[in-house]
Amino acid sequence: MSFKAQESLSEQIAQHLARQIIRGEMLAGDRIQELRIAGELEVSRGSVREALLILERRHLIDILPRRGAVVKDMSEAHVRSLYELAQVLLGLVVRKAIKVMAEDDMDPFILSIQQLQHCADERDMDGFFEQSFRFLELAYPFSRNPFVEDIMANLQPAIQRAYYMALHLDPDECKECLSFFKAIIETIFRRDVRSALEIIREFAEHQSSLVQESIVRARQIEAAWGARRKK
Amino acid sequence: MSFKAQESLSEQIAQHLARQIIRGEMLAGDRIQELRIAGELEVSRGSVREALLILERRHLIDILPRRGAVVKDMSEAHVRSLYELAQVLLGLVVRKAIKVMAEDDMDPFILSIQQLQHCADERDMDGFFEQSFRFLELAYPFSRNPFVEDIMANLQPAIQRAYYMALHLDPDECKECLSFFKAIIETIFRRDVRSALEIIREFAEHQSSLVQESIVRARQIEAAWGARRKK
Repeated sequence: MSFKAQESLSEQIAQHLARQIIRGEMLAGDRIQELRIAGELEVSRGSVREALLILERRHLIDILPRRGAVVKDMSEAHVRSLYELAQVLLGLVVRKAIKVMAEDDMDPFILSIQQLQHCADERDMDGFFEQSFRFLELAYPFSRNPFVEDIMANLQPAIQRAYYMALHLDPDECKECLSFFKAIIETIFRRDVRSALEIIREFAEHQSSLVQESIVRARQIEAAWGARRKK
Repeated sequence: MSFKAQESLSEQIAQHLARQIIRGEMLAGDRIQELRIAGELEVSRGSVREALLILERRHLIDILPRRGAVVKDMSEAHVRSLYELAQVLLGLVVRKAIKVMAEDDMDPFILSIQQLQHCADERDMDGFFEQSFRFLELAYPFSRNPFVEDIMANLQPAIQRAYYMALHLDPDECKECLSFFKAIIETIFRRDVRSALEIIREFAEHQSSLVQESIVRARQIEAAWGARRKK
């Protein structure tokens, strides 16, 4: 029993740290010191260690032999791989949803879209961000596939990190996202698998490029800055 | 450092137990007692506990509130979900492989097919089983996607459990598998994405049905046996 309780504590610590990484309050390469976190949160080092293993599994940190835990780099390859996989899994979710969803099942999604619309109108980016993943979490169970649900739960923090970045890169990105969510719901209504998969592919490629381009730009700025300092 | 060493020990314990579950030496519903395993393997209870968490993550056991660790049930839904996901992920691997593979990269696969053929000719089921997953493990890196590689590594034990069952259900199943591996390599050679995806779909559906049917049969036999005993 104490074991279970501890697992849930490390899950809480993991979520606390994940939030900071997702929101860019901790940056790629930042070290995460077990001892400091344990002190700050008043928890045991063992719980922090377990939390770090959870975060490693969720692709938010690397645990390196001598350096310990560091926030994972967001390389272009990382982002490309992430959206490529998310596209395929979301495709499976929507294909299954089209098979199994009844008309009543759509109500929470329509409500969710209304809330997304509201957040977009109010330029409430944090609200929009939270609501986007509530929408997706509503969808996963319709895959009727516990493996997919499990993978999505573990993959979601890494997706959130990229998605958060995308929303803050371009003020119009939330409109793109909103159109995506609306289009997906429409294709599920029409039971149009082919269009659904196409919409998912287009959106994943669009957002993947957006985030990748900003990574390239950041690297160029950093390099220019480095060159200037050398002068 | 001791942490890493311990992680590797629990990984070894996990693989030891996984092997028994995959080969049906431990059956669905069997309890796995921490204390007994720790005694048998002369390791700490903590290491066994970590190994059980690894096995839970790999979908081979369930950790239940009061009953502890039990070997996961192989329901039809479990098998269907497993092959459905494997199909989609293997599709991604092969699509990427067709893009990135050079002709030289094919050599290990051709060698692997020769070994599979040899095992099939000799009716060496254990060899065939091992070689099948060596073939797949050769393929995963061509996804050029660390997320997919990671998921496949965690999913593989559950796939192995079903695959092992399939090979022992039907003496001709290894011929089916061999044809599948050959056909996949041929489509990669021809860079024929569409046929590759179709071949993966057909094979996944075929093997999924084979395993599911045997589960249904086993349940019917069990029920008939129960009814007979009641008389």
